[in-house]
Amino acid sequence: MKYRKNEAKEYAREILKGVWTALPYNFTEDDRLDEPGIAFNLEHCISRLQIEGHYCSGNVAEFWAMTNEERMRAHEINVETAKGRIPLIAGCHHQNPYEAVALARHAQEVGFDFVIILTPYIAVRCDDALYDYYRFIADRVEIGIVLFNIPQTYYPISEHLTKRLAEIPNICGFKQAGPAPAATISLREAVGDKLVVSVADETPWLYNLSVMGDRWLLNYCPHLYQVPGYLPVRDYTRAALGGDMNRATEIARTVNPLRAMHAKWITGYGRPTGHVPSAEMKYWMELIGMVGGPVRVPCREMTEQAKKQLRADLEATGLPAKAAAGGGKRSG
Amino acid sequence: MKYRKNEAKEYAREILKGVWTALPYNFTEDDRLDEPGIAFNLEHCISRLQIEGHYCSGNVAEFWAMTNEERMRAHEINVETAKGRIPLIAGCHHQNPYEAVALARHAQEVGFDFVIILTPYIAVRCDDALYDYYRFIADRVEIGIVLFNIPQTYYPISEHLTKRLAEIPNICGFKQAGPAPAATISLREAVGDKLVVSVADETPWLYNLSVMGDRWLLNYCPHLYQVPGYLPVRDYTRAALGGDMNRATEIARTVNPLRAMHAKWITGYGRPTGHVPSAEMKYWMELIGMVGGPVRVPCREMTEQAKKQLRADLEATGLPAKAAAGGGKRSG
Amino acid sequence: MKYRKNEAKEYAREILKGVWTALPYNFTEDDRLDEPGIAFNLEHCISRLQIEGHYCSGNVAEFWAMTNEERMRAHEINVETAKGRIPLIAGCHHQNPYEAVALARHAQEVGFDFVIILTPYIAVRCDDALYDYYRFIADRVEIGIVLFNIPQTYYPISEHLTKRLAEIPNICGFKQAGPAPAATISLREAVGDKLVVSVADETPWLYNLSVMGDRWLLNYCPHLYQVPGYLPVRDYTRAALGGDMNRATEIARTVNPLRAMHAKWITGYGRPTGHVPSAEMKYWMELIGMVGGPVRVPCREMTEQAKKQLRADLEATGLPAKAAAGGGKRSG
Amino acid sequence: MKYRKNEAKEYAREILKGVWTALPYNFTEDDRLDEPGIAFNLEHCISRLQIEGHYCSGNVAEFWAMTNEERMRAHEINVETAKGRIPLIAGCHHQNPYEAVALARHAQEVGFDFVIILTPYIAVRCDDALYDYYRFIADRVEIGIVLFNIPQTYYPISEHLTKRLAEIPNICGFKQAGPAPAATISLREAVGDKLVVSVADETPWLYNLSVMGDRWLLNYCPHLYQVPGYLPVRDYTRAALGGDMNRATEIARTVNPLRAMHAKWITGYGRPTGHVPSAEMKYWMELIGMVGGPVRVPCREMTEQAKKQLRADLEATGLPAKAAAGGGKRSG
Repeated sequence: MKYRKNEAKEYAREILKGVWTALPYNFTEDDRLDEPGIAFNLEHCISRLQIEGHYCSGNVAEFWAMTNEERMRAHEINVETAKGRIPLIAGCHHQNPYEAVALARHAQEVGFDFVIILTPYIAVRCDDALYDYYRFIADRVEIGIVLFNIPQTYYPISEHLTKRLAEIPNICGFKQAGPAPAATISLREAVGDKLVVSVADETPWLYNLSVMGDRWLLNYCPHLYQVPGYLPVRDYTRAALGGDMNRATEIARTVNPLRAMHAKWITGYGRPTGHVPSAEMKYWMELIGMVGGPVRVPCREMTEQAKKQLRADLEATGLPAKAAAGGGKRSG
Repeated sequence: MKYRKNEAKEYAREILKGVWTALPYNFTEDDRLDEPGIAFNLEHCISRLQIEGHYCSGNVAEFWAMTNEERMRAHEINVETAKGRIPLIAGCHHQNPYEAVALARHAQEVGFDFVIILTPYIAVRCDDALYDYYRFIADRVEIGIVLFNIPQTYYPISEHLTKRLAEIPNICGFKQAGPAPAATISLREAVGDKLVVSVADETPWLYNLSVMGDRWLLNYCPHLYQVPGYLPVRDYTRAALGGDMNRATEIARTVNPLRAMHAKWITGYGRPTGHVPSAEMKYWMELIGMVGGPVRVPCREMTEQAKKQLRADLEATGLPAKAAAGGGKRSG
Repeated sequence: MKYRKNEAKEYAREILKGVWTALPYNFTEDDRLDEPGIAFNLEHCISRLQIEGHYCSGNVAEFWAMTNEERMRAHEINVETAKGRIPLIAGCHHQNPYEAVALARHAQEVGFDFVIILTPYIAVRCDDALYDYYRFIADRVEIGIVLFNIPQTYYPISEHLTKRLAEIPNICGFKQAGPAPAATISLREAVGDKLVVSVADETPWLYNLSVMGDRWLLNYCPHLYQVPGYLPVRDYTRAALGGDMNRATEIARTVNPLRAMHAKWITGYGRPTGHVPSAEMKYWMELIGMVGGPVRVPCREMTEQAKKQLRADLEATGLPAKAAAGGGKRSG
Repeated sequence: MKYRKNEAKEYAREILKGVWTALPYNFTEDDRLDEPGIAFNLEHCISRLQIEGHYCSGNVAEFWAMTNEERMRAHEINVETAKGRIPLIAGCHHQNPYEAVALARHAQEVGFDFVIILTPYIAVRCDDALYDYYRFIADRVEIGIVLFNIPQTYYPISEHLTKRLAEIPNICGFKQAGPAPAATISLREAVGDKLVVSVADETPWLYNLSVMGDRWLLNYCPHLYQVPGYLPVRDYTRAALGGDMNRATEIARTVNPLRAMHAKWITGYGRPTGHVPSAEMKYWMELIGMVGGPVRVPCREMTEQAKKQLRADLEATGLPAKAAAGGGKRSG
């Protein structure tokens, strides 16, 4: 570990910033981990997209369809590939707090900077149970923990409860997937001095950065919206931090066709009866020079017709052409 | 009417823009409409806060606790006070489509520019029923209709359904209270060429204006955040439209303490078990030189302790001092 | 009024019992109240189906699509038709507590026994607001009030809150549409000595009657399941009260095909995206010798194909044939 | 396996009937499996309570806080204890279909009759994903699978989807925890000839048995409500099956005080913000001669005050005295 448990909050303030992404995992046709594919995509993000940090094993990574052993191996691949060039967070989400501990301890041992743990999706529907769940894990690991709140789907982490959790030494961040701006404002008021808060959505990032004072974007869009030679999220972030909001705004506007693509193809699961769009993400990635490949049950492959439409829509944004121009396709 | 039914969409594009507010209604101690109070507040918004339009009888206006006769009288007061200086929209929300028609016809006759109608809160839980509800009303009035979507609480108006509704000649706007940015992006893609879309939240307005291309803010915050001599929402909007995003951003940042006040005191109803914060809004208004006064059941008056705390919080933002410096308190 | 306000609970225990039904209202082809139709159906229930009480203006009655004047007129028709032969409850549901008071006062004046008021569907999402809503109405009328809880759709009336409400003198009953048996058990424990509780579902009625000690069924199925000469709900209720559970069970079993009809055609609104099945109810009624007729927006007429299928399904149960054999079709 | 995969439905009709229970697992003070405790409780159910089948690793068993290894070991203890005297179902619920397969294969190998698998609590929010999840598992095991539907909390298994699932050879039962009677009627209509349906609630069991034709109760109440010498659930079931509904009803009525206990102490998790009442169940069991003991995070131990109150409430029902009279306390 790069820091002691009681330094976790301080270390988080130093490390948790900039534009991060969250990659899917890749699988082979015979349903094993595609280790080279996983490594290729991360290398692509680091060296070609200049991503500033990586969150492994998120919802987009189909972690729920991987065994703990596979998840641990995938974490190792991340560490081996990153070689310390960027900080890494390991998603250690599990229905079982004991297994979340096992995953977090492994992440700690192999060299992750932090772990992130989602509100449990079973057995927790009151504040005390949620507090006990996180406390149980935090007490058993040294590594810093980022909370992950998806109030649309799971029991929410209120700002009141977050204040209690923020007293735990190695709880040090909050990934907010609840979309209501007022709830996030309350959260920043309640714990902004203790936890690093990240809104899990690229769309309002420029605003959150320039007006709200956020410093960390933790979201899967940066590798979908950017290709070598076209790094708009990075560029508008830099422009904003550099004090040129006109330029930042102008760049951010160029992303609108990609945001519309994303709204059309990727956000279905956020709807009352939607599906997890892992196949759509992977196909999008294939179209811009990254590794995609098959998905696991209960995610479903796209139909040929849907792929044709997605491809046409994405080509209409010009992104695949930019990717082709920028180079970087995996050989073989 | 200032336009013919089949010109509603065109007229909407011309009129529905800029910073609008939505005022509460005021009541006397003996529970009648406080007509001078209502007129005072609107005059304050027009002549002192330079608000560009007014949405009457919204959720903040306790319309559900007013008879149709009171609502119509309140609409007349709005027209009489505005004297054509700003455009007006009348909230004609009703459980009963027949009474929504009666309210909308009255608004049309007394000179409103548009009406706005919320998804019905009873008897509608499928797309066809929602379509029929709006169609029934639209067929029976000439005036243009703005749809109002609160998917957290009522049956949502999906972008698919909105496309069907947008074919009706006098449906011409969409007030979006759903907070998910991706859903609003889908909506703009689906009907942005036909309907004027407004996100019902001041917080992301600068972003929606500068990056997303929105032109209309329809929200109750402008009269809570602004006082004579301090018009930040107006000012950052103008700066953004004038191409100075650095200045817009700087001004928008000054509103953060007020947004935190709002998140703390006003947004409770958005939570699973919250209350409608009419008393809090009215007390806030009293502290900045506007008319407040009692609320109606089922809203509840604040305790003295809560008022003391709200007052201290608001004073800490400096807004009441700015209001006092800017003048404008109602005599008597 | 047949009792004084402070006798409401006592009167309720005497009157609120047996098998009641809740009829739809009928409308003419030119969208006015079909007064003879309304009277015919109630007379049918009283003299041919031997129903023991009637709840007017319920959810099945499309009250949300009627003006207050129409609702009051419909209430008068009920009183004029019943002529004191059975007790009557008037549904005075309204978004507006002031108008709920007006409806309840009218019901009180024209001779109703009780009123029933649904949890408000707007502006109430905390216990205090719900308490204030009911208290406001109860304070302004003499007549006894039955609470109506649909926790699937509106803010629920918890057993804790019901205990507070049960202290109000003229709150005297509770129509429970929440389906969880444990919640109803908690409710009976909390207020069973003060309020008459009725589970709003025919299916578990025999059980609630024989094992749980309930005495009142308040539901719209009795006039759908029974025809002159076949009165199974009445008969199994009598058998159970008379101590012959074998016969009660045997009769209750004969209703199963009708319960399946009901589950297939009528309960859609209880599903996440269902519609209010008023047209289906009315068509069913037409097929068994009652008056049906058109529905109002936002309810929708059935397609011819759906009608054909419903008719075939209902005929397969044998009910229309029993109705024809039992006589009672309205002439003309 | 006692049957071939394509005989699963037939075997299910033969085996899945009568009064089953679902026990909690017991843990030692140092947080390991209390193997003798687990065996004691099952023996108690078989030889003293005459329970007709056991569902292991249900929601009451805190399976989410056990590793797969612990769950498999607990399944072995069940098989070793039952010694073939009663049929057994293993709960193989898991966020991960691959691990659900591993658990189901183990259950198949050690001699279970069936497995039961809950709708996944993550990654499934559309019918196709749910179908694929169950299909993936069913294709990889021989053993028969019972579906488990908790629509209040997880993505529901509609009757339409159940029809598709019922075509899979080794899907053979449905545990229905949705409380709406009409939904269960639709379900029986849709698949009652293919799947054995059990309503997961003791309260309406007598009704479902005598009127609806159900033959299987799968619920955790039988070991909470019954003690040696007082076996009311068994007795009223037998009376009903034997054609004496008066006696069945009379016995069922005696359980009412225990149902009220259950509604007060155990059903909190069914409420919007409740907790999982494992500690309450275990303490209840201790008071009637069974093994209780500590719970695992995120379940929480009861306070001393709460225990005192639960004990007083349970003693008021007379159950602990009956248990003491009936003997059977574990020595040591």
